[in-house]
This record gives sequence, C-alpha cells and structure tokens, in this order.
Amino acid sequence: MTAGSSPDTFPRGFASDNFAGAHPQVLERLVACNHGHAMAYGDDPLTAQARKAFSALFGQDVDARFVFNGTAANNTALMAFAKPYGAVVCSDMAHLINDESTAPERFLGMRLLDVPSREGKLIPEALEEVLGRGHGVHGAHPVALTITQPTELGTVYSLAELRTLVSMAKAHGLGVHVDGARIGCAVASLGIGLREMILESGVDAISFGGTKQGMIFGEAVVYLKPGLGDDFPYWQKHGMQLASKMRFVSAQFLGLLENDLWIENGRRANAVAQRLLEAVRGLPKVEVLYPVQANSVFARIPAHLVEPLQKETFFWPWDERQGLVRWMCAFDTQPEDITRFVSILERFLRA
Amino acid sequence: MTAGSSPDTFPRGFASDNFAGAHPQVLERLVACNHGHAMAYGDDPLTAQARKAFSALFGQDVDARFVFNGTAANNTALMAFAKPYGAVVCSDMAHLINDESTAPERFLGMRLLDVPSREGKLIPEALEEVLGRGHGVHGAHPVALTITQPTELGTVYSLAELRTLVSMAKAHGLGVHVDGARIGCAVASLGIGLREMILESGVDAISFGGTKQGMIFGEAVVYLKPGLGDDFPYWQKHGMQLASKMRFVSAQFLGLLENDLWIENGRRANAVAQRLLEAVRGLPKVEVLYPVQANSVFARIPAHLVEPLQKETFFWPWDERQGLVRWMCAFDTQPEDITRFVSILERFLRA
Amino acid sequence: MTAGSSPDTFPRGFASDNFAGAHPQVLERLVACNHGHAMAYGDDPLTAQARKAFSALFGQDVDARFVFNGTAANNTALMAFAKPYGAVVCSDMAHLINDESTAPERFLGMRLLDVPSREGKLIPEALEEVLGRGHGVHGAHPVALTITQPTELGTVYSLAELRTLVSMAKAHGLGVHVDGARIGCAVASLGIGLREMILESGVDAISFGGTKQGMIFGEAVVYLKPGLGDDFPYWQKHGMQLASKMRFVSAQFLGLLENDLWIENGRRANAVAQRLLEAVRGLPKVEVLYPVQANSVFARIPAHLVEPLQKETFFWPWDERQGLVRWMCAFDTQPEDITRFVSILERFLRA
Amino acid sequence: MTAGSSPDTFPRGFASDNFAGAHPQVLERLVACNHGHAMAYGDDPLTAQARKAFSALFGQDVDARFVFNGTAANNTALMAFAKPYGAVVCSDMAHLINDESTAPERFLGMRLLDVPSREGKLIPEALEEVLGRGHGVHGAHPVALTITQPTELGTVYSLAELRTLVSMAKAHGLGVHVDGARIGCAVASLGIGLREMILESGVDAISFGGTKQGMIFGEAVVYLKPGLGDDFPYWQKHGMQLASKMRFVSAQFLGLLENDLWIENGRRANAVAQRLLEAVRGLPKVEVLYPVQANSVFARIPAHLVEPLQKETFFWPWDERQGLVRWMCAFDTQPEDITRFVSILERFLRA
Repeated sequence: MTAGSSPDTFPRGFASDNFAGAHPQVLERLVACNHGHAMAYGDDPLTAQARKAFSALFGQDVDARFVFNGTAANNTALMAFAKPYGAVVCSDMAHLINDESTAPERFLGMRLLDVPSREGKLIPEALEEVLGRGHGVHGAHPVALTITQPTELGTVYSLAELRTLVSMAKAHGLGVHVDGARIGCAVASLGIGLREMILESGVDAISFGGTKQGMIFGEAVVYLKPGLGDDFPYWQKHGMQLASKMRFVSAQFLGLLENDLWIENGRRANAVAQRLLEAVRGLPKVEVLYPVQANSVFARIPAHLVEPLQKETFFWPWDERQGLVRWMCAFDTQPEDITRFVSILERFLRA
Repeated sequence: MTAGSSPDTFPRGFASDNFAGAHPQVLERLVACNHGHAMAYGDDPLTAQARKAFSALFGQDVDARFVFNGTAANNTALMAFAKPYGAVVCSDMAHLINDESTAPERFLGMRLLDVPSREGKLIPEALEEVLGRGHGVHGAHPVALTITQPTELGTVYSLAELRTLVSMAKAHGLGVHVDGARIGCAVASLGIGLREMILESGVDAISFGGTKQGMIFGEAVVYLKPGLGDDFPYWQKHGMQLASKMRFVSAQFLGLLENDLWIENGRRANAVAQRLLEAVRGLPKVEVLYPVQANSVFARIPAHLVEPLQKETFFWPWDERQGLVRWMCAFDTQPEDITRFVSILERFLRA
Repeated sequence: MTAGSSPDTFPRGFASDNFAGAHPQVLERLVACNHGHAMAYGDDPLTAQARKAFSALFGQDVDARFVFNGTAANNTALMAFAKPYGAVVCSDMAHLINDESTAPERFLGMRLLDVPSREGKLIPEALEEVLGRGHGVHGAHPVALTITQPTELGTVYSLAELRTLVSMAKAHGLGVHVDGARIGCAVASLGIGLREMILESGVDAISFGGTKQGMIFGEAVVYLKPGLGDDFPYWQKHGMQLASKMRFVSAQFLGLLENDLWIENGRRANAVAQRLLEAVRGLPKVEVLYPVQANSVFARIPAHLVEPLQKETFFWPWDERQGLVRWMCAFDTQPEDITRFVSILERFLRA
Repeated sequence: MTAGSSPDTFPRGFASDNFAGAHPQVLERLVACNHGHAMAYGDDPLTAQARKAFSALFGQDVDARFVFNGTAANNTALMAFAKPYGAVVCSDMAHLINDESTAPERFLGMRLLDVPSREGKLIPEALEEVLGRGHGVHGAHPVALTITQPTELGTVYSLAELRTLVSMAKAHGLGVHVDGARIGCAVASLGIGLREMILESGVDAISFGGTKQGMIFGEAVVYLKPGLGDDFPYWQKHGMQLASKMRFVSAQFLGLLENDLWIENGRRANAVAQRLLEAVRGLPKVEVLYPVQANSVFARIPAHLVEPLQKETFFWPWDERQGLVRWMCAFDTQPEDITRFVSILERFLRA
C-alpha cells in the first residue's frame, strides 16, 4: 500500500478529481473556524469575506453565492434565466445533460436542447441551427446557453471560441452561463484570468467549482451582471441548497482563493495530465483521442482490457464496448502515481 | 471577548443550535479521512460503515442515506410517499411548512395540509378532521403524515402520543415520517431509544439530524421499511443532494454515532435549557410559555426589550410584536453562557 | 319525467350550474361556424372578434384569452405573478384550494396560503395577518391574492369590500386576480358593471366563466393591465390549454357576450335562487345559512335526510355529517323545478 | 368564394386537419344532448356509454378517458409510467417533442430522449443505442417509449415495424404509448384494426384522436392493461383536463365511433392525399419527399415560391429556407379542393 492510503481510502489513481480529498490549505481554514458561534444561513463574517474575495477575483463587484454541489450550482445559476416554457441550450457532452439526472427538468422546469460537439466543444454552426429553429409557442423557447470550460473531454475553448459562442447566444437574446467546475484548469491552460476570459467575454453567470478544485464540498455561483442574482437567496432556499452552518463553506473558499490556490491546483493537475500523456502516447494499442489541454486524458485501449485494468487501478470507462477510457488527474496526483499506473497498464498491454 | 470567540465568530448565545460549530469528535473524523482517494458518490468504505452504523442503532437492517441539509432530508424522505395529486399532512408549527420555502411544492410537487397544534404538538382531533375530509379527485389527497420530534416549540411527544398519531395516519393509509433534526434531545428527554420510539411505533422514515446535533453539515434519511427507499439514490441525485466526496459526510456521522455522542449532545443541550429555565422563570416580566422538554425555552418578555436585547446577545424572536422569543441551547452551550445571558437580560428588565 | 329530460340526462335540479347544458344562443353560434376551414390555435377571425368583444365589455383594451376549463383559467391567469418561491393567497373557501387538486402546486409551482373567511368572504384582518407574516427566504413569499366573486357560498362582495381587499394586496406588492366563474351573478346582484367592479378596482386579471354561465366548455382569462399577459400564449401551450379548433370556443363566447346574455343568465339564476329561498326558509327543520346574494342557497337540514333526498333529486352536500347542503340554480332552472324540488323536500321533512 | 366558406372561415385547403370543423355526425350528437341536466365531471350516462364503446372497439375491457386536446392526451397518458427521474423516449419527429412546448417537463416532470428517425419512423438501431446507454443515477432513466402512428411525416409503421419497436421497449422494461391523433388514417392505410395493431402488439396506452378525426375538441386516452389508468382521474384533475360538462365530449366520441366514422374519415383523408400526390408528382420543380401512406404529402418546391403560394392558399412550411412544405388533407377535403390548389400551384411554378 502506497503512502497516503488507509483502509478507508486507496492509493491515488486516475478516476476523477472528486476521488481526492481536500487541499490542506482548504481544510485548515475549515478547522480554524470551528469555535464559538456564528450567524447561520450565510449572515456571518466569513461568508461576507468570501463573497468579497470573488469580487476581488473578477476585479469588480460580482454576486457570489455558495451551494452544496455541482449539480446545484449549475441549476440554481440558471434560474436567473428560467421561464416555464424555456429551454437551456448545451453541448451534447455537458455535465448538465449527461450527469445531473432530471434536475434541470424538475428544478428549472425547463427542457435541455443539446447541440452536437467536436472534441467536447459546441459546434458553432450546430448551435446556430438550434438557436434559429423557432416554432412559436409550440416548441421549447431557448433562454440560456451553458458552456463548459474546460469541456468534459479535457479540451479548453480558446478566448476567441468562447466569445464566438457568447455572441451567438446574445444575438438571440439568451443568457450565458459557464460551468466552471474545473475552471482553474482552464485558467492555467490558457494563461488568461477570469476577468478577461469570463466577465469581459459577456458571460452572465458562472459555476465556480469548489469540490473538484480542492474542497470537501461546496460550489460557488457567481453572477456577473448587477441584479441578475437578486432572487438567488430564494432559489437557494427552495432548491434545498442553503447551508445553515455556511461559514464552513465560506472558510473553504477563502482557503481555495488565497494565493490563487485554485489556479495552482489546476496547473498541477494539468501538468500531471501532460506527464501522463507523454507516458502513454507511445504505448502500443493506446490511442489518445483528444488534445490534452486540461487535466484528463481520453484514450482508446483494447476493449477487453478495460475491466481487468479497472479492477487493479480504478478509472471510469467512457464507452466500455469500444474501449474508450478517461484518465483524470487531481490536484494531488503525483509523478509516482503515474509511474505506478503506467507500469500496470503496460503489464496488461503486454499480456 | 469570552473564550471561544474570534473575529470570525462571536460568544456562544441562545440563538440556535445551528450557530454552533462541530463537536470535536465529529471534526476529528472528518479530518482523519482526508488522505488518499476514495470512490465518489457514496461507494466508499466509510459510507458503507456509516450506513451499517444506523442499522446497529435501530437494531435491524434499515436503509440510511445522507443528504446535505435538513430541508433536503425532509423532502427527499417524503418522496417515498409522493403522488402528483398528493398532500403531506403536518403540524402548523412544522419546519416543513414554515421554514423550507416552497421546497415541498417544487421538489415533491405536493401540497402541505397543516393541522392545528397545541404546544407544538399535532392535535389528534384536528388531525382526524383533516384526514377525514375526502373530496375525491377535487381535493389534494393525503399520502403522508410528518411529525416533528421534539417539536419546534421544544416539547416532546410521549410514546403514547406518538403512537396515537401514527395509528391515525395508518388507519387512513398514509405513510409516516418523523422530522428528527434534534432527535437526540427527544431520546435524552424520554429515556427511550430510537428502536422503541420510532421503529416499533410504526414510523416509515425519519430525518435524523446531523447539523444541529454536532456536525458541520449533513443529515441522514433512514427508511425503516424494506424497499421503501429503493429509489432514493435517484431522488437524491435529481434532488441535487448527492455529495461526490460523500466520505466526508459519512465520517462525520461515524463520529456522531460513536458512543452515542448524538444522545449525549442532546442531553447536554436539554440540561442547559433546564438551567436556563430555572434562571429565568423567577424573573419579573418573563413568562415561560411551554413545558421545557428539550433544548429550547420560549418566553414572553416586554416587547420593547426584544430588539435591544437581541443586539447585545442575538436570538430569534418568535413573534416580535407580542414579545415572544425563543432561546435555544446547543450541545456546546456552557453554564457560564447562561450566567452571562441572564445578567444581560436582568439588566434590560430592570432598566 | 318532466320536459327536457331524456335517458341521457335527467330533470333539472339544484346540483350545480355545470349540470346544465349550453344556452341556445351560445350553441347556435357554435353550430353556425361549423363549415369551411379556419386557422388553428386562435389565429382565426372569430377569435379576434371575441377578444375584441372583451375589450368592449371593459371599455378599454384588455387582453382576453381562452382556455378549456375553470381550473385552467385560474391557474394560467395566476402565471402572470408566479415565482418559484411564491405563494398565492386565497380564502379557505376558494375553488382554487378546495376543488382544483394540486394544479396550483404542479402548474404554478407555488403554495396556497389560505385565509379564514366569514360567509365565504375573506376576512380583512385575517388577510392582513397572512400578508404581514414575512419570514425572508424561509417562508413561501406571497405574490398574488385571488378573490372569488361571487363567493363559493353564494355571497357577493360589495364594491367597498372588494376594493378594501385589493388595496391591502397592492400595499404588500401582490397582484390581484378574481375568480369570476359566475361573475354574471355578481354583476346582476350588485347592478355594477365589470368596468367599475373589476377594472377600476385595480384588479389585474379575471377568470371570466364560460361553462357555468351558459357554454359547453371554455373560460376566458382577461388581463386588465398592459403587458401582463404577454407570455400567456406560452403558458397556455405548455399548460395543455391551447385548443386547435379555437373558433368553437370563441364562437360560444360571442354568443355569451351578445346582448349581455351572461348577465341575463346570472340574473335568471339569481332570481330562481331567491324563489327557492322564499320556498324553503319557512320550512320546519330547514335553516338557511348565508345571505342569498347570487345563485345558491346553503341550508342545514336533518342530517339523515341528506342521502335519501339526494337519491330522488341530486344535489351536493357541503358537510354531510352536519346536514349542510348546497342548492344551486342554473340559468335554465325554471319555477316548476322549484315546485317539484320543494314538494319532494317537504315530503322528506314530513316523513 | 367557394361553397362552405364565409367571412368566419375560408375555403378548404391543405394546411392541417385541425383547420376543419366537425363532421356532421359528430356535431349532431353534441347538439342532441343539449337538454336537461346531467351529472358533471363524467359521471353521466353518455360518458359511460362512450367509455364502453371503446371497449367494444378493442374487443375487450379497456379504460378510456377523455381530455381536451392532443397535448393533454399524450402527457396524461404517459403519467402511468412517470418517475421523477425518468425519461420518455420518442422520435425526433414526435409531436411530443416538437409541438407540445415544455408540457412533458412541466406536467410529467420528465426528460424527453429523442431518437433519430427515417421518413418519420424511429430507427430501431438508434432506439437500441438510446435504451442501452445506462448511466445509473446520473442520467435520466427511460421509463416509456412513445410511437406516433401514423408518423408526423405521413408514413405508417407496418405491423412488423411496430412490434419490433414494442419488443425493444419491453425488453428494457419500458411502457409503450402510441400517439394516435390520426390513428384512423393508419387503420385505413394498413387495413388492420386497432385490436390487432395496438392491443395485441403489446402497447400499454394510446392517445386516440378526436379533434383531427372529426370532432370540435376532445381526445381519448385509452389504457389497454388493467390497473394502469386507475389513478387517471387524479392526473386528469390536477392536469386541468377534467371537463365539467363531460357529456359534450362523450357525445362527440359516440358520433365518431358510430359506424366506424373515424376510419371512414381516415380513409377519405388518405384518398385525397393520394389524389393530391397524383396531381403534383408529375409537376416540374416539385419533388415528393416521403411515401404517402396517410393523409399528408411532403414536398420540396422552389423556396421563393413558398411564401407567395401560402398567401393564396395557406399551408405550413416544414423548412421554409429549403422549400420543404407539408400539404395535409382533412376528412372534409374534396376533389375540387385539389383542382383549385393544383391550379394555383401550377400558376406559381410557371411564373
């Protein structure tokens, strides 16, 4: 058993960034505020401080709010654009449509309209087609576009690509949301800050990841336009997302934002993914599928190897029948984890 | 500033048990599992262990699941009885109807039918009247009864009272849920264990409090009848209540259940409430309103004192215009907190 | 068997105004437009004409829309005020809360907050109490008040009473809706037109009854403030209330509005109710319960007579155990129907 | 102006079968029951008779219920399979997904999963792919398949094709619904009765069209398996689809079913479509797109002609930019309507 494991957990692998625990800097903050009493439901000083920290991050006043998990962040964020006859437009690869059960239908009460993607990215022509359909009262009426940055396939929209999509959405009167569960990886990858990438691109709201970026739990919803999130506290409450002991979410965010830890964590995860890419791309029978621009490597391996390989070092298959797999790096993945993983992989490939 | 305070928090008072932090035994467990990787979404060893611990608690196999907060616990628990044309029957004092916004309408899609209460307890005759209405397809159809134990007014149903309500509900074909956000206070108060009080009384499901009983966040939903919670993982997911790093909730519950800490915490909070009762009931112009059977004291004080008193030591008014106030004790409230609070109160009463 | 009955129907009684068929003037219009083709979904000339007829009725441009039934009229009308965390305030006697199943919770996604009533009318003090509760994000947030005119108990709000309620709602920022399923009875009773009673009182929207006022099916939702109903066509469509062959609803409304037939029908029904009142109020063991101001008589009769009496001449009990009954008159009820009914009733009372 | 037109309507064209009025045999029945009183909400003799007539139609006891329109028929029918985390699988051409706004998301609370189609028909391999996805609690869980017969593109599934789809759905545990808004056209086209085509194929529920088959309004939902529709009256009520004067829907259905008028109407509409096909397929610059198996002809014409042609004789474009158009025949379309239409079309083509 390698260092860092115990009966409760297992050695670090390449399953997901939500298999990791919390970054020490984050956990310390959480522990440090466990004394005395504080106002509940977010009316405490740490929450005020954490909300301000987001304004500092974007270089102007923004409206940051905290919820429990990623599904909640995306869905409560999108409430700003909700209409009962509305639709949210998203990539066919989006977490929103593939991994959030019927939360959009139940909580937002809206339809999802999926747009074909290439390497995880929305195809502009396909987006235009969906936006241009128009069917009066008979169809579901697009009210918002959500863009995942980095994408679910580990690619990163360039600034130009992002702005093209935002413009198209705006031209049709839609609001624009970014799912930034791993936004630190995108910032690290592009070398462009959130202000330029998100705020100045015209995005209305972003889900800023906590859990995958190094926290135990907690996500931020940040509204970038004045007034847009005024009703958020109500959405949060009826959405069952109002933490009574909110200070413990806020404290973690303060830890995550301090010294840009979230970007540093993204940079580390990206770097490990590059090392992993280097280590596997020369291997026989291993085909890397997409550009590795963030913290995951998608590959095709012989289909019959997927299951036995998983048993020895768990990861998620993307399409088991076709041997497509996803290997994802976390902020805490180490070079020795790659060595261990690749040696197992090579053993299977040789067998 | 008294011990235990810092700029982030303030001295312990009598506002709510959700103003407290976590019990050290709970926090230690959370911190202790922050290493290595673990399966996400509850497929980890700690979660399995915590779920088993609930079966041990009830003395037989039960189905325990973990969500983020109390509103979510109540509403996901009640999904087991949901019908689109259904209604949940509750006391007019219930947290479900007074403090959970429209979560029942939005998530469960059902109506709440409130029943008049006396000292926080459902009045059996009034319950019978609501259950017997019957209006075919035209009315909302009662499908479940929810009972809060201890009640929101700090009283505790006796075993006989509880069983009367359960029988009435069962006679009309309803499921029965208990909101046990502070159930440890009821167990400590009655000296009756969960098996006898809840399971053997015929209750179908219970929200077992985490946050108010000493955790940072996290609540348990426990189904006591086989099969009742089989679809729970789906409700949890589309209800935006599936924590990816679930081990950190489970670890806390393991800490809370160890050596019956949750009962011990309830006992402590109840004891402090009794001390507070002793300290205030002799005071002039202070009228205690209900029997103090759990961890809160409700009182009437001169209405004009409510606001200035709150400013010096925060608590929640129950009806500000009438001078009704709630003073609630947490597991960490100490005798010196009472001394401090009562001296402030006396000062105001004298003024 | 009396005239007007056949195996398909039975002699006119006092069950409800929805036991009647259509007024001949209405049916003629429906039949008359059954030729040729017309644009579907309301884009036809008859619908345009009927919508204009409502503007004529109110003496200024209003936005009239047509749906299938009364439940739909009330619920789609209220969409103008809907918020996901909102509540609609209504009398505890309202059709909305007693007779529309969970349509408000499911379609509007909101809670109903019921206010105690006296003789079917909202009690202003009780309304003020509900409006003044205020519980921030924790409670359901009142967004609209709905008033039933005439009430479900056959009483009619005076102009002053109505305006008091509207003012109270407006002072708290609520929208105001009137359920006017039998509004013709109120207009006939008060001798005040819709413009003065409804529009000039500040009401925002009204459900204007079709079915109970003499149509086969169809109700109007009329928005009295510019812009309020702009999204109605979308609500109507996703609410499953868009008739494709709309001209057949519109034609009926043209028949109903012609020469104020709807008021004439209300006047007739009211007059019959007065005759019925005269005929029964002297009877031994019959106690009339409320002022008879519209088309129904509520009475208490010996409880054991309710069921046998119903079998001979059907009507709805209001509270069977207490012998409370409702006798309702329709536009087509005739003097001889009263003679017949009262002779049966007298026979039972004597027995 | 041709016969059958008036200022209220216009000459019969090829826009849609919902541009027609009611068949005389249907209207007569409606008019005939307009006398006396009858129990409301479907407890009347005509409704009992109409429900029995559907059992006769299927050759065994079935559970037929009546709602107002097609959107309601599809969505209330599917309630039998609803789960809050569920999905309904349908063709990407289905009325349910293209023409019913967000009714499925709002009323059923479920997601629609669309399957690619060929000539309007679900492609079995594509259906298998959607059914086989499986993503545990993370995805939306397919609970029902809906099949449109005839399809929205005027093609008709053969018995074998239909049974293949039903088998695939059943193998995955899904319920099966048929949208039969124009089912008479399919019966006429295949020469196979409903019992063999629908009931013996294993279908669970069918929306049996009223409006498009010759009624003024009203659709039937027929459950073919015992118990499946037991809760329907509740769904109908909270779905705002319970007509109080139900006899007027039932009477129309009795007229529609008498002497198989619905099949005769389908046969007529199909025959006119064949005549239209004959008349246009030889024309220069007109390309017929799909097999004409029911009552509509889809064609490609020069794109710039669509709008001026529409102005002279209205019809719906299918894709205006590409010059794709739909010409649909109703039960009352006559040979002279074709002559007139084709002469206009030829004039435009020549110009």
